[in-house]
Amino acid sequence: MYKNITMMHGGGGAIMQQMIQNTIIKNLKDKSCEIPLSALDDAAIIDGIVFSTDSYTINPLFFPGGDIGRLSISGTVNDISVMGGDPFALACSLIIEEGFPIDDLERIMMSIHETCTEAKVHVVTGDTKVMEKKSIDKLVITTTGIGKKSKLLEHNLEIIQKYRPNYNKLWLSDFNIEKGDKIIISGTLGDHGTAILSARNNYGFDSNIKSDVSPLNSVIEKALAIGGITNIKDPTRGGLANLLNEWTSKSGIGLKIYEEKIPVKESVRTALGFLGIDYLEVGNEGKVCISAIPEKAEEILQTIKQTKEGEDAMIIGEAINEIDIPVLETIIGGNRIIPMPSGDPIPRIC
Amino acid sequence: MYKNITMMHGGGGAIMQQMIQNTIIKNLKDKSCEIPLSALDDAAIIDGIVFSTDSYTINPLFFPGGDIGRLSISGTVNDISVMGGDPFALACSLIIEEGFPIDDLERIMMSIHETCTEAKVHVVTGDTKVMEKKSIDKLVITTTGIGKKSKLLEHNLEIIQKYRPNYNKLWLSDFNIEKGDKIIISGTLGDHGTAILSARNNYGFDSNIKSDVSPLNSVIEKALAIGGITNIKDPTRGGLANLLNEWTSKSGIGLKIYEEKIPVKESVRTALGFLGIDYLEVGNEGKVCISAIPEKAEEILQTIKQTKEGEDAMIIGEAINEIDIPVLETIIGGNRIIPMPSGDPIPRIC
Repeated sequence: MYKNITMMHGGGGAIMQQMIQNTIIKNLKDKSCEIPLSALDDAAIIDGIVFSTDSYTINPLFFPGGDIGRLSISGTVNDISVMGGDPFALACSLIIEEGFPIDDLERIMMSIHETCTEAKVHVVTGDTKVMEKKSIDKLVITTTGIGKKSKLLEHNLEIIQKYRPNYNKLWLSDFNIEKGDKIIISGTLGDHGTAILSARNNYGFDSNIKSDVSPLNSVIEKALAIGGITNIKDPTRGGLANLLNEWTSKSGIGLKIYEEKIPVKESVRTALGFLGIDYLEVGNEGKVCISAIPEKAEEILQTIKQTKEGEDAMIIGEAINEIDIPVLETIIGGNRIIPMPSGDPIPRIC
Repeated sequence: MYKNITMMHGGGGAIMQQMIQNTIIKNLKDKSCEIPLSALDDAAIIDGIVFSTDSYTINPLFFPGGDIGRLSISGTVNDISVMGGDPFALACSLIIEEGFPIDDLERIMMSIHETCTEAKVHVVTGDTKVMEKKSIDKLVITTTGIGKKSKLLEHNLEIIQKYRPNYNKLWLSDFNIEKGDKIIISGTLGDHGTAILSARNNYGFDSNIKSDVSPLNSVIEKALAIGGITNIKDPTRGGLANLLNEWTSKSGIGLKIYEEKIPVKESVRTALGFLGIDYLEVGNEGKVCISAIPEKAEEILQTIKQTKEGEDAMIIGEAINEIDIPVLETIIGGNRIIPMPSGDPIPRIC
């Protein structure tokens, strides 16, 4: 038992989950709704409104491929979209360090504006607080979003019901995955974390390594228009390893993943390998993982591959009727369990 | 022109407003909706949903009369209620310093639970981030709330229309105040700020001084049930002085306030006087200021006075047809302008 908070308590893995259960969920009264707090999903759903919040504490604020502004819009837009929500309004709360350059703040606001335009959402409300020097590291943004039920959810459900007549789950939740579902990843893993490490430490990695941070609501919309999707989730803190463990434990199903199918850029593989970091455990900010009925998986894959954000998409595995853990069939042969990470190996990745 | 952020940029007064206009609003595209970002009101209203966010950076976390948990629920509940919204779901995002005692976090979660019960709202989603020591001062909570239109708003409007047939403003906004409106304050000013200063500095003030931090949705509901209310706002950062200046400039109307009517506890008056702080400029966390048609003001006042939170309520002034500034008729005689404060005299008051 921990007596004090450690960096791993914010790492999105097992240590954080235990603390959230024992210290937070235990003390709050759960409200019965479509997706409640206790589901610990990417967003709550209450009275048809998808509602999600995230504080962005990323270090550094500017990095190859993005900045905290782009991240704070993309992250929240994605958390709403992966539940089947259509994000329509955002709230941004800024906590700024005394002495922070107003020019940098303006650059970040312009980035927020650009990302909002790309994602077709608007910031409609906000707050500004200032803390003394060394009471906050430069700037933290908390972005909260609200979304309405996507018009495509009913269509998506109808497609599933063609093949599974008793299936009746409208929203996309971690509890939905069933035997036979194919697992699709929308692109390469590890880009964001490697870009952050590179910007932070000047390791001299391949200069083409860029964060993938991006709003994915339009990609998700295209996939839902095909239909047959049981769940979508973005592999952020704790990476794909955390995501797969959440899926197996919440859905009570096994997952078989094929290592050779997982897309990773060679430069990222080299950089993370050099640091001894498992790309499966590193957070991404522009990728989604989709579970879909096998009859539609290939069509969904081809649709995603036609988008800019999804050109490297792959089917990487499937849900199997075995004990509820994710198993990796390795390239060198043999299977190994993908363990739940304690937390993301890269602190303050988002 | 400032090149860097100062503590006053988070102080809720003129300096913050200028920065928000020039650096934030200027760069974001305003979404046309019931109450847009550019209205800079306590909440946005979009498609009938009241939406508000606040980061709570208060120092210290525990203080006479409350703690950051109670504050973070009350503040957001109040921001939704003062617009005419009925808060129904909250999102809480925690940013915690490495090394923070988990026992303290649990105490704060219990306080959040108690305040939610009192306000009849639920936390339905959240986020947890950890920052290194000296990258964040202990704990910051960002609470975002969503509310539905109060069922009493139509009734409230009908009552106004009995006396002002052309009045058609359903929501309670800073642009609504009209000549003749009475100004009601729900209780004594300065308690919260004085309690914070006392906890922070060990000044040895009267030990009965306590923060007023409280959810006010039930008081607001009772007032709206009488009807005739044109606007409600809570005098937080920058205090009543900031509130009155926002009302006069946005509604384009003058306000006459009678100093002898403003309720201030003697102990608070003494403590703030000793420090040379104007109680009009200090943030409160359990008070609302109401503008109402004169025909209903007395009935609203009596209703508020029957509540625990409103027993010291007073009618303190009225809207007059003069230049759009607030004027104070002083106890010693004569009038003086109530200037817009540069920012709250007490940093990190909320």
